[in-house]
Amino acid sequence: MNSWVQSAAGSGYDINHLPYGVIADSSGRRCVVRIGDLALDLKALEDAELLLAGGSFRHPTLDTFLSTGPASWHAVRARLIELLSDPAHRPAVEALLIPLDTVTPVLGWHVADYVDFYSSEHHASNVGRIFRPGQPALLPNWKHLPIGYHGRAGTVVVDGTAVVRPSGQRAAGDVGPSRRLDIEAEVGFVVGMPSPLGAAVSWRDFAEHVFGVVLVNDWSARDIQAWEYQPLGPFLGKSFATSVSAWITPLAALEHAWVDAPAQDPPVVSYLDDDRRALDLRLSVEWNGIEVSRPPYAGMYWTPAQQLAHLTVNGASLRTGDLFASGTVSGAQRDEVGSFLELTWGGAEPVTVDGQQRTFLVDGDEVVLRGRVADIELGAVRGHVLPAHS
Amino acid sequence: MNSWVQSAAGSGYDINHLPYGVIADSSGRRCVVRIGDLALDLKALEDAELLLAGGSFRHPTLDTFLSTGPASWHAVRARLIELLSDPAHRPAVEALLIPLDTVTPVLGWHVADYVDFYSSEHHASNVGRIFRPGQPALLPNWKHLPIGYHGRAGTVVVDGTAVVRPSGQRAAGDVGPSRRLDIEAEVGFVVGMPSPLGAAVSWRDFAEHVFGVVLVNDWSARDIQAWEYQPLGPFLGKSFATSVSAWITPLAALEHAWVDAPAQDPPVVSYLDDDRRALDLRLSVEWNGIEVSRPPYAGMYWTPAQQLAHLTVNGASLRTGDLFASGTVSGAQRDEVGSFLELTWGGAEPVTVDGQQRTFLVDGDEVVLRGRVADIELGAVRGHVLPAHS
Repeated sequence: MNSWVQSAAGSGYDINHLPYGVIADSSGRRCVVRIGDLALDLKALEDAELLLAGGSFRHPTLDTFLSTGPASWHAVRARLIELLSDPAHRPAVEALLIPLDTVTPVLGWHVADYVDFYSSEHHASNVGRIFRPGQPALLPNWKHLPIGYHGRAGTVVVDGTAVVRPSGQRAAGDVGPSRRLDIEAEVGFVVGMPSPLGAAVSWRDFAEHVFGVVLVNDWSARDIQAWEYQPLGPFLGKSFATSVSAWITPLAALEHAWVDAPAQDPPVVSYLDDDRRALDLRLSVEWNGIEVSRPPYAGMYWTPAQQLAHLTVNGASLRTGDLFASGTVSGAQRDEVGSFLELTWGGAEPVTVDGQQRTFLVDGDEVVLRGRVADIELGAVRGHVLPAHS
Repeated sequence: MNSWVQSAAGSGYDINHLPYGVIADSSGRRCVVRIGDLALDLKALEDAELLLAGGSFRHPTLDTFLSTGPASWHAVRARLIELLSDPAHRPAVEALLIPLDTVTPVLGWHVADYVDFYSSEHHASNVGRIFRPGQPALLPNWKHLPIGYHGRAGTVVVDGTAVVRPSGQRAAGDVGPSRRLDIEAEVGFVVGMPSPLGAAVSWRDFAEHVFGVVLVNDWSARDIQAWEYQPLGPFLGKSFATSVSAWITPLAALEHAWVDAPAQDPPVVSYLDDDRRALDLRLSVEWNGIEVSRPPYAGMYWTPAQQLAHLTVNGASLRTGDLFASGTVSGAQRDEVGSFLELTWGGAEPVTVDGQQRTFLVDGDEVVLRGRVADIELGAVRGHVLPAHS
């Protein structure tokens, strides 16, 4: 299948991808689908009756479309592929393509609840070794359930948003800007179809509820987090900002990206006993333009389908716009970790970045997360660190 | 100041109170203010130009009104007091009063982010003694900052909503309905005015941002919570349901309810060094119609102004509709605790409820939380326990 948008070929955003987003310019916000470095205006497409989507794209966010469910998602995608591949549609559709360098991508949906998991065995083990040396690397519950917690939905920001260094308590009586500002490279899942309160969602229904995938940088202030997290978990060490990519890659574009997930030992309980399908995404962490790590997402111990089943086993409802993230993606090797905490082993082993010895983030640093599988490039997550407010 | 609504006198909802809510009936949802057992239709009042509120009440939730800020809140309240006290307005206004027994109160606002604190020294000490016997009752950070975490905003439900007993992992390999279903009696604060990302909010600006007060029952499954909470805090043990009262009592109605909060030792850091003002609310916990506890809110170690300052010290933004709750309100005495965990000392010391020996909640139980200060009665929070889904 080829698109008549010839610049799309090889861009990571060809016709087999078609991620959704929202762009802003002087005329407001519009839902779009990305092809190459162009955005197709979905509202204009609906207005011109080239796309029948029940008015889903006449809103300035993707929320309505997300809520319509899998049959609608698939029908819209099939029509967009038709419009962008059949040359007969080119004259009408080409006029609705917008160069991305003339607009600003914005956060495309209302984040309902944000849950962050902790599902990489390598990451959890590394954190255990760094913070609890001499004790078992994993806590007793870790292999029995996907550990997770709720983050702050209101501070989820889009790719490119600068992050102000957070201040807070670094220890008893010690208040000031965080000295251990870190990243966490993660994969996030955006829920489309809601579920009712009181009813668990099976891992088998993953694709009925989850619309697509984003990249996530769960910025973390390790000093604030270390002092506050007992006994109720991370709070201000995380809640100042969480960055997501501007483009939601639909699951439908990733059908060929599923591979076997690692086997689990000990066996898990029945509601978590899934079919072990993992997305073969390879992430990349760039620090001031230098690639410092390539975290392999497929090796995560807990799959996204297990995370969804766990999240709802107690009857918690899903809402359109819920975001759940994988937790830091770390592989077995030092150049596969998803945080600078691990990359520099708690700051004890600096790395060389562009000729400088570095541990945690300094003001002015830029981090870019990327993700790729075959010829599909997930939207990047860029973030620049601004000095703390005085 | 007296109202011409004579049945309001002595009801806990007289003209000095006037809490806001949303009611539903066959003609839809409407914003109302409560007086006695009547609801004044604010949309009808605006439509009749008896109230000028910029169309705030032409929405089916209180969100727009909450977002308008303190000057608007005070002007609307002053006008409502005028309309409900001056007999000259009675003929026009009386026609817009709706008996509450003909309508259903619903959740009146969109809960943006939900944060739950842990601010009663008695509660935190009791939990420490029950779960970590032989160790210090409080963890080292507890007196330095108000410990808190994010809960699930999407499962906040209104007074009267039945709660399905949650299922989940009670221990390794052990899945089933919670056997230790509990309550937490709390006071919640509803944010009206947002704050920008990157800027801390001072405790001095509490009344600029917080609109009012609700009662909260933070239902808790202690077995699920105990197994999951290390190291990222409570998750499924809490996320199945959090109940709030249907009526938001504006801070303006509580101006005479402030008393001195307990002194703090050791001294706190500067951003938490507030003026020690506590709301003198006395809660009540009824279990199947029997009052089993009277938790005193004024004795909380951390004040709501400190909680607000802490929540934002890292630059986290506030959104209209954010809810932050006090944490379980427990006093020094056994009959002043806000959870059955404490009331029955971890289940080891059953209490007699209506002739039966009881520890945690059984199916069919009903819990009602109430709160009062002087002649103001906060809206109740009722919840009935339904059996787990099989």
